[in-house]
Amino acid sequence: MEFQDERTEHGVTRRSFEIAVSGETVPAVIWAPEGANGPRPLVLMGHGGSQHKKTPTLSARARAYARHLGYATLAIDAPGHGDRISREQAEALAQDVGARVRGEVAAGWTPERLRQMAERTRKAVPEWKAALDAAQDFDFVGANGPVGYWGVSMGTAIGVPFVADEPRITAAVFGLAGLRPDATEMAAAARKISIPVEFVFQWDDAVAPRAHGIALFDAFASKEKTMHVNPGGHMEIPQFEGEAWERFFLRHLGPVDAAARSPQLQTV
Amino acid sequence: MEFQDERTEHGVTRRSFEIAVSGETVPAVIWAPEGANGPRPLVLMGHGGSQHKKTPTLSARARAYARHLGYATLAIDAPGHGDRISREQAEALAQDVGARVRGEVAAGWTPERLRQMAERTRKAVPEWKAALDAAQDFDFVGANGPVGYWGVSMGTAIGVPFVADEPRITAAVFGLAGLRPDATEMAAAARKISIPVEFVFQWDDAVAPRAHGIALFDAFASKEKTMHVNPGGHMEIPQFEGEAWERFFLRHLGPVDAAARSPQLQTV
Repeated sequence: MEFQDERTEHGVTRRSFEIAVSGETVPAVIWAPEGANGPRPLVLMGHGGSQHKKTPTLSARARAYARHLGYATLAIDAPGHGDRISREQAEALAQDVGARVRGEVAAGWTPERLRQMAERTRKAVPEWKAALDAAQDFDFVGANGPVGYWGVSMGTAIGVPFVADEPRITAAVFGLAGLRPDATEMAAAARKISIPVEFVFQWDDAVAPRAHGIALFDAFASKEKTMHVNPGGHMEIPQFEGEAWERFFLRHLGPVDAAARSPQLQTV
Repeated sequence: MEFQDERTEHGVTRRSFEIAVSGETVPAVIWAPEGANGPRPLVLMGHGGSQHKKTPTLSARARAYARHLGYATLAIDAPGHGDRISREQAEALAQDVGARVRGEVAAGWTPERLRQMAERTRKAVPEWKAALDAAQDFDFVGANGPVGYWGVSMGTAIGVPFVADEPRITAAVFGLAGLRPDATEMAAAARKISIPVEFVFQWDDAVAPRAHGIALFDAFASKEKTMHVNPGGHMEIPQFEGEAWERFFLRHLGPVDAAARSPQLQTV
């Protein structure tokens, strides 16, 4: 695997690469502690609708996981997102999604929108699997380390079917999404998930009604699952939930052996 | 104030004392780091139905708060509980409450039970205020430090009206309780609460239906409030929620100045 760019800042190295899946090129990025060597836990982060693999909140979490936990974090552009579309298309998408999550236009899941989302998920699941295969080939990740998944909103719409079908993942954060009564495939996927789940939900979300959020939480087969409900809209998850996700992953993916972290981090 | 006993174990000192409220003697206990001097945050812990001020889970949290955070923790026996009843009465109460929370007998709030709970709350609120007054006289607590409240189940039934009426309290953990549609006093109290609240709720609780739990969470006026929902019954709050409570209090009541903690703890 050849990296297209490699950039180190404040003790964290970010590498970009591409994978080919069904004739399409999927852009990927992986963060790890500077100088990292040997296996470590890996978190896959699925971005939200209209966002991309290096969206600021996602990048910030990836850097924090490298610095605080010694973890690696992998992200890819979802189908129809990021470097897979033009800048103009990305701007139009951001305006459309922004208006819906702010409640400015009806959040309604039209048949066309549902068809698009189902198609996007069908493409995304094998892309995530291929990206995980590639990441596990890197010596600073390794083939046998624990793997977690983080993804809210579209990251849950794609993540639930993906995690249901991916036994390497042993803990997942989902949220900002619900289960519509007619979403039989999503329901079946959620019922296949039995790993620990932390599910974050905004009580006044314009695009995910409370009853649907509760239905999705209920559908997970996990013995350990927690739903964190906060007031506010889709973009208003409180800061402290970010700290809770970090502790959730640390609890389930485990600490990184100091020797394996990186020379830089051992002195912090 | 004279202490009836004082006992130090593993760096934590527990002192027992009594306060007089409306002609009744209320037994109280306070934990603090060994050798603690100077003001520090104080957490008031309200025990559950049939439990008492030194019930094992409560004592364990109090010791942990002293050791991890340098905090003081205050607990009192609720009316009709602990040292305020005979051992035989306590055993009968534990059997009754135990059967209800395990779902072995109907959890129904009969008019008589509701009357008893309302009476208990009316007595408990001034007792908590008097206990807090007494604790703030101790040099290792001080009159101006931040004060939190922790109480689930009966600790919420009493705690919500108490916290609504006590401006010294700036953060509260509630849970394992709900708002019945006819509970107008409880609803009014909850709507008066605007401090940060963490609300823990068990999804399969035999004594608190989901809709009532959500109604109580919704009633709090707090801008920052989080509901943590977990599967399982009344007695099955997962261990990790205990860690979340500690971080919640640390976030809102703040750290203890190292110099004020205690000579013992500074070396830990």
